Amino acid sequence: MSDSPIDPTLLDRLADVAVHTGLNIQPGQQLVITAPADALPLVRRITTAAYKAGASLVTPILSDADLTLARFQHGADDSFDTAAGWLYRGMADAYAGGAARLAIVGEDPMLLSDMDAARVSRAGKATSTAYKPALEKISNFEINWSICSWPGLSWARRMFPDLPGAQAQARLAKAIFAASRVDRDDPVAAWADHNAALKTRSSWLNDQRFTALHFKSPGTDLTVGLADDHEWHGGASPAQNGVTCNPNIPTEEVFTTPHARRVNGTVRSTKPLSHQGSLIDGIEVTFSDGRITDARADKGQDILRELIATDEGAAHLGEVALVPHGSPISQSGLLFYNTLFDENAACHIALGQCYSKCFLDGASLSPDQITAKGGNSSLIHVDWMIGGPDTDIDGIAADGTATPVFRKGEWA
Amino acid sequence: MSDSPIDPTLLDRLADVAVHTGLNIQPGQQLVITAPADALPLVRRITTAAYKAGASLVTPILSDADLTLARFQHGADDSFDTAAGWLYRGMADAYAGGAARLAIVGEDPMLLSDMDAARVSRAGKATSTAYKPALEKISNFEINWSICSWPGLSWARRMFPDLPGAQAQARLAKAIFAASRVDRDDPVAAWADHNAALKTRSSWLNDQRFTALHFKSPGTDLTVGLADDHEWHGGASPAQNGVTCNPNIPTEEVFTTPHARRVNGTVRSTKPLSHQGSLIDGIEVTFSDGRITDARADKGQDILRELIATDEGAAHLGEVALVPHGSPISQSGLLFYNTLFDENAACHIALGQCYSKCFLDGASLSPDQITAKGGNSSLIHVDWMIGGPDTDIDGIAADGTATPVFRKGEWA
Ligand SMILES: [Zn+2]
Ligand SMILES: [Zn+2]
Ligand SMILES: [Zn+2]
Ligand SMILES: [Zn+2]
Repeated sequence: MSDSPIDPTLLDRLADVAVHTGLNIQPGQQLVITAPADALPLVRRITTAAYKAGASLVTPILSDADLTLARFQHGADDSFDTAAGWLYRGMADAYAGGAARLAIVGEDPMLLSDMDAARVSRAGKATSTAYKPALEKISNFEINWSICSWPGLSWARRMFPDLPGAQAQARLAKAIFAASRVDRDDPVAAWADHNAALKTRSSWLNDQRFTALHFKSPGTDLTVGLADDHEWHGGASPAQNGVTCNPNIPTEEVFTTPHARRVNGTVRSTKPLSHQGSLIDGIEVTFSDGRITDARADKGQDILRELIATDEGAAHLGEVALVPHGSPISQSGLLFYNTLFDENAACHIALGQCYSKCFLDGASLSPDQITAKGGNSSLIHVDWMIGGPDTDIDGIAADGTATPVFRKGEWA
Repeated sequence: MSDSPIDPTLLDRLADVAVHTGLNIQPGQQLVITAPADALPLVRRITTAAYKAGASLVTPILSDADLTLARFQHGADDSFDTAAGWLYRGMADAYAGGAARLAIVGEDPMLLSDMDAARVSRAGKATSTAYKPALEKISNFEINWSICSWPGLSWARRMFPDLPGAQAQARLAKAIFAASRVDRDDPVAAWADHNAALKTRSSWLNDQRFTALHFKSPGTDLTVGLADDHEWHGGASPAQNGVTCNPNIPTEEVFTTPHARRVNGTVRSTKPLSHQGSLIDGIEVTFSDGRITDARADKGQDILRELIATDEGAAHLGEVALVPHGSPISQSGLLFYNTLFDENAACHIALGQCYSKCFLDGASLSPDQITAKGGNSSLIHVDWMIGGPDTDIDGIAADGTATPVFRKGEWA
């Protein structure tokens, strides 16, 4: 590993940021880490940092791209509705018992692109269904959790197909380190500053009490109603267990819950969406009273339509997020084929499940109360990018007056 | 991997033996694989073979030696009674739902030898307690399961400290392939022959209905009462789910359940025992009415005594097994520091939990009935070797007559 294309010092810093800024792991807390097996150099550093911070037990759940492919290549056709429910119930159990959760992403985002799309979709739905009890504890923010990333070789090759493997991996590592703010001497302090800046934006939006946002850019004329008693969030925020954490490393967005029945107009995607190993590009969708009535895509249209048909909530919005075009990830000009990065390059919306924390006093609300206020519920949560250098956004008040929020892709 | 010290053709065969002979995986059956992450070349082959045989879903649970060490190096002292109960409950759930189970061993058996022994022991006990619901389904043979092994580099270095790493790994791989009968053209057929030979031995023993075995060799004069309605097993046998499998690859033993309250005399170990990363050697133990009354060891005596103190059942026997001194693993002259191999080099006994399948109609017996017949119950099951070239064994009938079973380490 002495000639590794990944700087070990910055990897150490990423581990520190993951444990202290991302998770803010507490003494005595268990930690569940999901990661690709080739991310072990990062998993080991994070595990050591977590134990030093007082974690009682770190349990890795490691995946492997070849094992995933073997299923789609050799599995019997009637087996693709099966999921490891026993493992996901176990995870839900761990979170209910107070464990924190870290996901490390690093696999080739296009891993499954050559596999049978119907099988991939069936397996994805079976997994989502089985994972729901665990995912709810995450999306309800019951525990401190975080996602960070590892510059996996296949992912790097996907992003930089013209470079030799080691150079591609070095480029991806650099991009991850920069976006994750670990290319500075004191990354934890840099994150504190960044969190404060995001807090200023979300506080301003919360003070406005807009009832809707109006997005306007080439191909897009969309009014996104905001849920009653919605709350804007961004950067660090406190989980229901009282621990303040940064769920995404990196993050550039402020976001809230749209009203699932008050979205109208047409919207065009500004970046490709990588979903379960397939690329969906040139999305154009029309909403009427919150529901998608028409969905097209230049590429991956069938996958988009299958996604929207997952369940009733998959045809409605669960998130709206604001990211300036000048964000560092946007300025890198890179397409990561990975939501964790790409959603931080542009304003975006998400189909599917909303975050209950994006309501005033959200933790105290029942699912029925959340639905009544306009919160959406679904097996899926899929973000796609709708912002760019020409994006104008107005905030619409209850009396109909418009306040500029974004002009030409930047905060107004 | 082109210059790997491990022959890929034999690795393919080992995967076939694991899936077809070891597990006999059934169409539609899930499979849970535990393995060290560095065993991925074998895990991938096994996963592919399992899907080809009709497995509905293969879920790997991968471990990593450095992550295990990080806990003992950096964990807080009050954290070592913690276990991943949520994961083990999940596994129990998987087995209850019909999943098969494969364990791949391959880590350095001495991994934890430099760690704090009290911490290792506490962590081991917490894990055993948490794992009990899952282990019971294995030890009650409710599902088809198997163990096979991977020639891990650190394990190989431990066995061949004077060789360069790659050569050590090549030697261990060769030894594993030979013991696992995959160094032949048709290993699955070789296993069928071997299973038939073991069946001949266990059937003869079952016909005798001995009430005890009397072991005699230098330092050993031990009478091991056999449980009422005990049944001898060896090689392949049918699990309660109806699937015939080979729980151990390799295996050379025939074994049954001793009577937990009818063991008397003194016994000396003939090979070192590697337990939770420590070596226990020169064991000398005295039994009175089934219970250990005195335990010494030339090396690792404290660990032996802690082990025996785990619970009441840890001071009683749960298994007695016969292996001729001429077994291929014994003849290799290698000490593997790994029970899967070393127990197949010599007659052995195990402290702790008995196997309910080693009773006539064992699956129908309640825990109380098993206890009444002399079956032992414990959190632990630890085998240690008591046979050698001088071992004589007599079978004792109900009327006290003795029948030669072993003479000078071989079947009489
Ligand atoms: Zn977002
Ligand atoms: Zn989102
Ligand atoms: Zn045995
Ligand atoms: Zn045993």
